Amino acid sequence: MELADFKNMKDTLYSAVIADILDEMGYRNQAMSHTLHPLQDHDVVVGRAFTVLAADVYDIPERPYYMEFKAVDSLQEGDVLVVSTNGSTCSGFWGELLTTAALRHGAVGAVIDGMSRDTKAIRKMDFPLFIRGTNPLDSKGRTDVIAYQCTIACGGITVRPGDIVFGDFDGIVVIPSAIADEVVSRAMEKVRAENVVRDELRAGVSAEEVWNKYHIL
Amino acid sequence: MELADFKNMKDTLYSAVIADILDEMGYRNQAMSHTLHPLQDHDVVVGRAFTVLAADVYDIPERPYYMEFKAVDSLQEGDVLVVSTNGSTCSGFWGELLTTAALRHGAVGAVIDGMSRDTKAIRKMDFPLFIRGTNPLDSKGRTDVIAYQCTIACGGITVRPGDIVFGDFDGIVVIPSAIADEVVSRAMEKVRAENVVRDELRAGVSAEEVWNKYHIL
Amino acid sequence: MELADFKNMKDTLYSAVIADILDEMGYRNQAMSHTLHPLQDHDVVVGRAFTVLAADVYDIPERPYYMEFKAVDSLQEGDVLVVSTNGSTCSGFWGELLTTAALRHGAVGAVIDGMSRDTKAIRKMDFPLFIRGTNPLDSKGRTDVIAYQCTIACGGITVRPGDIVFGDFDGIVVIPSAIADEVVSRAMEKVRAENVVRDELRAGVSAEEVWNKYHIL
Amino acid sequence: MELADFKNMKDTLYSAVIADILDEMGYRNQAMSHTLHPLQDHDVVVGRAFTVLAADVYDIPERPYYMEFKAVDSLQEGDVLVVSTNGSTCSGFWGELLTTAALRHGAVGAVIDGMSRDTKAIRKMDFPLFIRGTNPLDSKGRTDVIAYQCTIACGGITVRPGDIVFGDFDGIVVIPSAIADEVVSRAMEKVRAENVVRDELRAGVSAEEVWNKYHIL
Amino acid sequence: MELADFKNMKDTLYSAVIADILDEMGYRNQAMSHTLHPLQDHDVVVGRAFTVLAADVYDIPERPYYMEFKAVDSLQEGDVLVVSTNGSTCSGFWGELLTTAALRHGAVGAVIDGMSRDTKAIRKMDFPLFIRGTNPLDSKGRTDVIAYQCTIACGGITVRPGDIVFGDFDGIVVIPSAIADEVVSRAMEKVRAENVVRDELRAGVSAEEVWNKYHIL
Amino acid sequence: MELADFKNMKDTLYSAVIADILDEMGYRNQAMSHTLHPLQDHDVVVGRAFTVLAADVYDIPERPYYMEFKAVDSLQEGDVLVVSTNGSTCSGFWGELLTTAALRHGAVGAVIDGMSRDTKAIRKMDFPLFIRGTNPLDSKGRTDVIAYQCTIACGGITVRPGDIVFGDFDGIVVIPSAIADEVVSRAMEKVRAENVVRDELRAGVSAEEVWNKYHIL
Repeated sequence: MELADFKNMKDTLYSAVIADILDEMGYRNQAMSHTLHPLQDHDVVVGRAFTVLAADVYDIPERPYYMEFKAVDSLQEGDVLVVSTNGSTCSGFWGELLTTAALRHGAVGAVIDGMSRDTKAIRKMDFPLFIRGTNPLDSKGRTDVIAYQCTIACGGITVRPGDIVFGDFDGIVVIPSAIADEVVSRAMEKVRAENVVRDELRAGVSAEEVWNKYHIL
Repeated sequence: MELADFKNMKDTLYSAVIADILDEMGYRNQAMSHTLHPLQDHDVVVGRAFTVLAADVYDIPERPYYMEFKAVDSLQEGDVLVVSTNGSTCSGFWGELLTTAALRHGAVGAVIDGMSRDTKAIRKMDFPLFIRGTNPLDSKGRTDVIAYQCTIACGGITVRPGDIVFGDFDGIVVIPSAIADEVVSRAMEKVRAENVVRDELRAGVSAEEVWNKYHIL
Repeated sequence: MELADFKNMKDTLYSAVIADILDEMGYRNQAMSHTLHPLQDHDVVVGRAFTVLAADVYDIPERPYYMEFKAVDSLQEGDVLVVSTNGSTCSGFWGELLTTAALRHGAVGAVIDGMSRDTKAIRKMDFPLFIRGTNPLDSKGRTDVIAYQCTIACGGITVRPGDIVFGDFDGIVVIPSAIADEVVSRAMEKVRAENVVRDELRAGVSAEEVWNKYHIL
Repeated sequence: MELADFKNMKDTLYSAVIADILDEMGYRNQAMSHTLHPLQDHDVVVGRAFTVLAADVYDIPERPYYMEFKAVDSLQEGDVLVVSTNGSTCSGFWGELLTTAALRHGAVGAVIDGMSRDTKAIRKMDFPLFIRGTNPLDSKGRTDVIAYQCTIACGGITVRPGDIVFGDFDGIVVIPSAIADEVVSRAMEKVRAENVVRDELRAGVSAEEVWNKYHIL
Repeated sequence: MELADFKNMKDTLYSAVIADILDEMGYRNQAMSHTLHPLQDHDVVVGRAFTVLAADVYDIPERPYYMEFKAVDSLQEGDVLVVSTNGSTCSGFWGELLTTAALRHGAVGAVIDGMSRDTKAIRKMDFPLFIRGTNPLDSKGRTDVIAYQCTIACGGITVRPGDIVFGDFDGIVVIPSAIADEVVSRAMEKVRAENVVRDELRAGVSAEEVWNKYHIL
Repeated sequence: MELADFKNMKDTLYSAVIADILDEMGYRNQAMSHTLHPLQDHDVVVGRAFTVLAADVYDIPERPYYMEFKAVDSLQEGDVLVVSTNGSTCSGFWGELLTTAALRHGAVGAVIDGMSRDTKAIRKMDFPLFIRGTNPLDSKGRTDVIAYQCTIACGGITVRPGDIVFGDFDGIVVIPSAIADEVVSRAMEKVRAENVVRDELRAGVSAEEVWNKYHIL
């Protein structure tokens, strides 16, 4: 998938329709926990997962942020940073300066099952950010990257490097890379069909009749 | 109570003043859990409870959404759909097309102690929606209606068909139908009295003096 | 610290930079739990802690709100009401009329590890309010002040009367009064240094190089 | 109710049969939260509620344990100490020496929705104790009694001084004092009827048939 | 699988060794949540899953326990009742008389992600019971069976009728019926190999050396 | 501290009296969370902390258990393994074969803020084990040691290598190594004084009088 595909998906699709197609294809467990939410209500993120695994630590490391920098400096255009923090709430893992660096590398957003800080600055940069909450404390001596571009579980869902991630206010779905093309083209089709259903319902046809006719909800 | 009453209540009252009157009348346990919140900060819902009981399931039913459709297609003007989901977080029980159908029947909002999806579209329709969170997954094969217009507990509070529901940003209160008229007329009176108290406090009278004089806070 | 200092801090600082200086000085546990959040995203509070300790009760007291009134009527210019509620969620401890009284005494905001009500009116008064949630029920016969201007723990952090409190969207940090002047002057300095770092990152220098040069993130 | 009644109840009844009678009489919300459990599996407590209300504090009081001593020294034969701790987990509210004092006054057990310490010694005294957990920290400067012989909520259930409390491994039920005699005599009867049902089931009659015949489960 | 197989498994295997074989075969998500535990520490359950789906209700049904009776009266020798309660904690779903009936039909235990009552009697019958807790309240008008012998999720794990369930103090594992024979025979083998490893470790060989030699832990 | 000291402490002291002395010396936050409990009610552990830091992972490492083996093979006589798991519940981090290895090195117990498996075998070896729960799944590809003999937080409390750990049914206290000798000798004294107090209370002196005389509870 290319940047143009991501842009196209962002303009037309939404997390629910992608989830519906994944359901149809037998992938019924691809939506992250509802405890993650966008920093801004209008945030939408679409891109290729760049995975990071972090954990809480209790000593200040010899080279602070060492692995975190390596990860951020490896980001490429169209990447979404997806971070499993081992449930960390004790620090703001993500912040303004890393956002600045990520943007410079072409990253299109971040999904972190932990905390962020510097959210005022991140709002201004309009960087799509999905988090569980905020914490003003620095990650130094609190939360460390222990690996990246490995398999992780973020928000309860397995994510592998290169999976496609789509997040909006409803939630965040993970599309395994091998089926991404099919999922997207079927989702585009379903969006068109839903428009017809919507019109019938507005015209007063009962929910049951509409379902019996189109099998779409 | 008529539609006109609901409109009147929406213009003048708020959940806290209704809760105060319920307290005075000995109904001290009528406010739903703070884990439910409006989709939009300005959402206010006032109407007659149409109750629904749902539960998580793990097989796709022979007739998907069958009971849910029957419920939605039974809604009448002034109804508020109040749904007990047995704590479900695994699917977006409510969505755009059901909102469309509910609105067509004259429903004035929904209170669901579970998840919703299609929230972008629901915002656009400005349908007052109180939920615990969002989830992009369809309810088919995940969450099913098992009964409606029965007694339920939503957000920890017993709700019977025909009870009056009032929800705003502060929370959602349930007024048993038998006492609804008295509650509303006393609440209207209290709103007037609070205006006097507010003026005295602004004029610099101490909180204690004001309480001793009016016994209103 | 004077009102002018608080204004100055509000204009220039943010919770994360204060947290960084506290870290440097060995105070690593001064940020309240992420379960507290501002009523309005733009709320910022800076001031001197006026502490209150509350607990849930189950009888209506002989003199309702007695201690709460005494506390609010003791507030002085520049005070931030900081309330430990023993984890109460059963009532809206704070409300409109108390906000009116607090503002009249010159209080600059409130941080409550419990619930508030009357949030619509409080928004209009633009009173910075940090809470865990909302509840329309009155505190009378539910939650009572049992002491004030004592040591408390709010959001998991020890707060003593006179400590300096700084809260924004990222979180709420508590600065022990004895070190407040030093913390603030060092934070002002760090804000200036971060501007340089930001420029280098935007210019494309790698996160790692920037850290090695400035040791600021 | 007298000590002899409590002994009789302890020999014959159990919490589930009392809960059934309370259900029949319309008191359907009289069982405390399952998060409370007996210190020893065989613990059974039956007696008259002596209520205590506690809360977490953060200064060491001038007269430590003052109210706690007054409460314990007021206990009478047949009393069960029932303590609402405002959800405290930060200290072991109850301990060995208070158990010794309570036993000396004739108290028959304690139900505390908080923590205990000195549990090894309490086991040896075979004092029936229902708690949420253990904590080795002293309550001094952590958890204080703020009132006693008032209405409380313990484990989510309203308890008034003089209510009858019955706790065993299944849970703890609260019998309002006004209906205690009727509840007990009906429960005694039901125990006899259940013996018949048990025999039929063992003899191979189906669960459904047995229910249709006796309406007892 | 026959009763004799279950007996054999109960004598030789334990949940951890079964989990290891399931891991080897790529079934890495077959262990229920640690929030379920045996009523008695020595409880071990092995058998064929008979699944039940329940949910909380708020009206007393016309025919109380109707579906529950039908389920229990359908049990066969070697069955383990596995109940998904939709997270119910509000009643003791399981109890003495149902245990009596289940035993009479040859059921070998129950796994319920909810509450039980009558635990004293159930201990005496030595019926292996895995639950989340206890509650003395009857299920009538609180928790109802809505289906049985359907797919369920119990303790977070999908269970289908006929799957093999093995529970002990460590936890409860679910073996899909299609692979049950292979899992069991490989687990039997691994038990033998572990005996060798244990001897080497006791003889003082380092953990690392032992692993390098046997690849068993 | 020597093995003989640990034995002495185990014979005479208990966690509550140690916590009291730590309180007196101003160390008021040295008791781990009540969510950790002994595998067996009679388990008591006293020894020198050997710390381990673990985190959840999602790929099977090239050298499984590598760091875990290195840690266990470094244990020395009198060591207590204290493990911070980053809140892991997804695997049984500890098990029988590691217990065998730890015992062979002279370790006297383990405190793990995660899960264990093989608990039947561990009971038989009578190895004192404090955990949050059990899980039959292997840690391979689920939970990995990332460092050892570093600062950790276990059960919410900072633990450094060489700190003295004392755990019994009441809870687990951590004594910083620098003050260990003083804490132990003062605790021994307090145990003697408590015996006097106990006698007076049994003789019928009121709790208040006893406190006023001895200032011991």
